[in-house]
Amino acid sequence: MQTMFRYNWLVREEWYRWCEDVSVEELQRTRTGGVGGILHTLFHIIDVEWSWIQELQGKSGFQESFESYNGLEKVRKLDAAFRPEVEEFVQSWELSMETRPFFDPRPNGTMDVDAWGEVMRHVIAHQIHHVGQLSVWAREIGKKPVSANLVGKGLINPQLLS
Amino acid sequence: MQTMFRYNWLVREEWYRWCEDVSVEELQRTRTGGVGGILHTLFHIIDVEWSWIQELQGKSGFQESFESYNGLEKVRKLDAAFRPEVEEFVQSWELSMETRPFFDPRPNGTMDVDAWGEVMRHVIAHQIHHVGQLSVWAREIGKKPVSANLVGKGLINPQLLS
Repeated sequence: MQTMFRYNWLVREEWYRWCEDVSVEELQRTRTGGVGGILHTLFHIIDVEWSWIQELQGKSGFQESFESYNGLEKVRKLDAAFRPEVEEFVQSWELSMETRPFFDPRPNGTMDVDAWGEVMRHVIAHQIHHVGQLSVWAREIGKKPVSANLVGKGLINPQLLS
Repeated sequence: MQTMFRYNWLVREEWYRWCEDVSVEELQRTRTGGVGGILHTLFHIIDVEWSWIQELQGKSGFQESFESYNGLEKVRKLDAAFRPEVEEFVQSWELSMETRPFFDPRPNGTMDVDAWGEVMRHVIAHQIHHVGQLSVWAREIGKKPVSANLVGKGLINPQLLS
């Protein structure tokens, strides 16, 4: 669980650096699929991660729209502002939280019940899925995407017998 | 760990069904990004999952190329042939395997060492990333992609207090 979050944060940081060499027009351009743009995708990833973790804690999610964050530095600042609380929550994760129920009222009046462990994995998969979309758009603008490799990042230390 | 594999297998199955309504030409068409095509991506996901899990067990991975599997039914059959052994390995996963070292000799003569836990998470992220690419290509051909949602699939039962 924590490993996948750390992977996502590392990859996100690499995408921010990747964006530094891309024009604002390309970052803001409307594209096919997903939420329809590179910066908008990064904003959406941050928003969804934050909002789910807020909601698990009984707080309200993020209500602002992308229009106020349509710039690389604004997106980075938003991420940095949210990160400490997200990290604290992820680091405090323990086994008993896996099956804790999260009650999610639907607009039609019914109630969805998700396990907290499902919500956290949903957040993990959510970023990776959207980053896959970024990788296609990167190629469309002729630029190599950030590697999606999880191995080679030193996320888990192998136990070497001496 | 197991939850994410089960998620990936469910999503993969949904993509196979999605492919049933798409012409062979679209499934085989060369596209921008990733491995360059819809069927090729599904083949690549199966290949990579199988090969890593084979290699962890000291067996050799899959050596055949996509050219022999360029059809939906062929891809499905390959997946079905590999699945039992992959599932058995995933289900037998235990904590002590997380940090077990995997030695991966590189073409340049150096040796990479990954923890088994990293390899397994790499395999998980690998599929989700490539499925994100499928979702863009789906929109390009005017078809709604398979949902990437992990919540709502009944993967973990919430513990409801009576």
